Amino acid sequence: MVSDLFRTTQPVIIYPSSGTGAAEAALVNTLSPGDLVLAFNSGFFAERWSDIATHYGLRVRVAGGDWEHAVRVEDLAAALRQDRSHHVKAVLVVHSETSTGLTAPIAGIREALDETGHPALLLVDAISSLGTMIYEHDSWGADVTIASSQKGLMLPPGLGFNAISARALAASGSAGQPRSYWAWSSILEANRDGFYPHTPPISLLAGLHESVLMIAEETLPGVQARHAALADLTRKTIRGWGLDVVGPGEPHSNSLTAFWLPPGFDAAEVHMFLTERYGISLGKGLGQFAGRVLRVGHLGNMDIPTLTAALAALHSGLAEIGALPTSATPGTTTAAGPPVSATPDGPSVSAIPGADGSALLPSPFGAPGEQAR
Amino acid sequence: MVSDLFRTTQPVIIYPSSGTGAAEAALVNTLSPGDLVLAFNSGFFAERWSDIATHYGLRVRVAGGDWEHAVRVEDLAAALRQDRSHHVKAVLVVHSETSTGLTAPIAGIREALDETGHPALLLVDAISSLGTMIYEHDSWGADVTIASSQKGLMLPPGLGFNAISARALAASGSAGQPRSYWAWSSILEANRDGFYPHTPPISLLAGLHESVLMIAEETLPGVQARHAALADLTRKTIRGWGLDVVGPGEPHSNSLTAFWLPPGFDAAEVHMFLTERYGISLGKGLGQFAGRVLRVGHLGNMDIPTLTAALAALHSGLAEIGALPTSATPGTTTAAGPPVSATPDGPSVSAIPGADGSALLPSPFGAPGEQAR
Repeated sequence: MVSDLFRTTQPVIIYPSSGTGAAEAALVNTLSPGDLVLAFNSGFFAERWSDIATHYGLRVRVAGGDWEHAVRVEDLAAALRQDRSHHVKAVLVVHSETSTGLTAPIAGIREALDETGHPALLLVDAISSLGTMIYEHDSWGADVTIASSQKGLMLPPGLGFNAISARALAASGSAGQPRSYWAWSSILEANRDGFYPHTPPISLLAGLHESVLMIAEETLPGVQARHAALADLTRKTIRGWGLDVVGPGEPHSNSLTAFWLPPGFDAAEVHMFLTERYGISLGKGLGQFAGRVLRVGHLGNMDIPTLTAALAALHSGLAEIGALPTSATPGTTTAAGPPVSATPDGPSVSAIPGADGSALLPSPFGAPGEQAR
Repeated sequence: MVSDLFRTTQPVIIYPSSGTGAAEAALVNTLSPGDLVLAFNSGFFAERWSDIATHYGLRVRVAGGDWEHAVRVEDLAAALRQDRSHHVKAVLVVHSETSTGLTAPIAGIREALDETGHPALLLVDAISSLGTMIYEHDSWGADVTIASSQKGLMLPPGLGFNAISARALAASGSAGQPRSYWAWSSILEANRDGFYPHTPPISLLAGLHESVLMIAEETLPGVQARHAALADLTRKTIRGWGLDVVGPGEPHSNSLTAFWLPPGFDAAEVHMFLTERYGISLGKGLGQFAGRVLRVGHLGNMDIPTLTAALAALHSGLAEIGALPTSATPGTTTAAGPPVSATPDGPSVSAIPGADGSALLPSPFGAPGEQAR
């Protein structure tokens, strides 16, 4: 059951929506216009969630955070201690921030809420962590956990999820935000009879059934451990090239790795080059990271051979444009050595076109100095 | 382009949502809490749209209508004439009412608005008519046309559409409903650069691309004419069995045909019997039609042979349980003759299991008297 992935015995609401819709649903079911919420300025998706809250007339107080560090429990604890009158109705936290590759300590946040005896609801965005990282909706005391279909669940986009707690359900009874499509009450009522109040996205639900079976077969801890190993491999590999992963020393996501390009490289141009010449599609930097950061996704139906091949192609591409600090001669990869250790299961690095430094196509970037800006 | 299907040169917004979501989007982008809207009590989906409006604090005035008749332009004209001060901000009409199989005269409604000089926006639910019936967003002066992926577009559910007019777009600038996911402005802004403000449901968008190509190949008028022929065949066939189609003499939808079961039959039981024994899945009656009506869908990727086979199976099933008035002997179909004329392309009726009256399986209904209630 999908609720097993959230580690909850409570109902899980499924929407025909993107994850952004599920983030909106968490707010409009639990809060009223004018309510105060605490949020962290921890990345693009944290900011977007705050923006959604603002659109619904919620007042957002930023409890701290910056994009190069994980959310700090101390920041939340300080904000909660200042709120003796309990004006704060909810805390919004992104578990795995897809724009930075950093993670928030949800269990620690719950402890801070409990230690200060603060009744605020805990709303968690687990869109890019569900299934890839340890996540415990019930035992961590999350009140709403939002997720979507296209990350750890390995499906096309189009399903949004709200896992809810008894407290959140109770809050929805008095929440004053107008709502219809997102209303938990009508969905829970229809679900009891095996129906939905609107036409369900059946092709994605059929896929979800298969995703749940696949994860159960590998076991949820097994899937999470595989993602941890893929993330570790990626970070070590990129650091081994002499590049900086975003947030050194911070807790990282199992789902993606964000890294800085050296000064003078435009991430959008590098992204296009890597796509067109090496056939790999990375994530570009978002928001304040635009132009400077690239992101490697390593989640879902992913194994070491596939990831190794992508990293080898990435290494070759970066070497070709002279973006690797240890690559003495632009256009070759020999100075940096093979990008990753060849594993018994993996393709040999020399099998990757261009990985041996041979230019199969003329570089659209010309000499390294030309694209610096 | 998908806008060609709506017959509009204006932008068409695409949501990751069900059609219900698109119906909500039409309201929250154009109206403000407390606004008065006119609606018709013309079927289940008309009522649901009014319910959504009520959830958002809109005041709904019912201009008339009942489920056995199409929306009457005279009812609207009378309501508009009474509203000299133009309190009514929008008129909500369902073009093809999926619960009744009847259609509303959208062009006539536009004329009534123009003749009375009433500035109300015209919001139209074309969920089950887009692609199957003549529909002209621009020339009929619709301000918002809502649609979804799983009807005439032949796709799984999961895409909602809002075709909009310049007037609707202008109204959205001052509309006071809180909104974020449904907000046209952020979607139009992102679309201009080829993006979406949230993760788009790419598998369905790929399917949509193919749907648009398929319809263009057959031509939109050709697709509409095919649906008109399928609908005509269905109504004539069912009437030929001695059953009553909902709304005799009223304008019917090209997409589905709703018909009454004879007194004493429970539509839910008949539905289950037809599914289990004949492998056909009809629509059950909704709302006030529950238990008394069945609905035959004949839309999308549908041709005469397929429809003929389904009608033959339906005839056999109804005959087997004694639900055909002209079927003198329960359990046989011979009294009523073959359910539809065999066409050169179609399967012969005798190829349908049970169509010759032979009971392949014991009827779960027993003698006709037993299931009457």
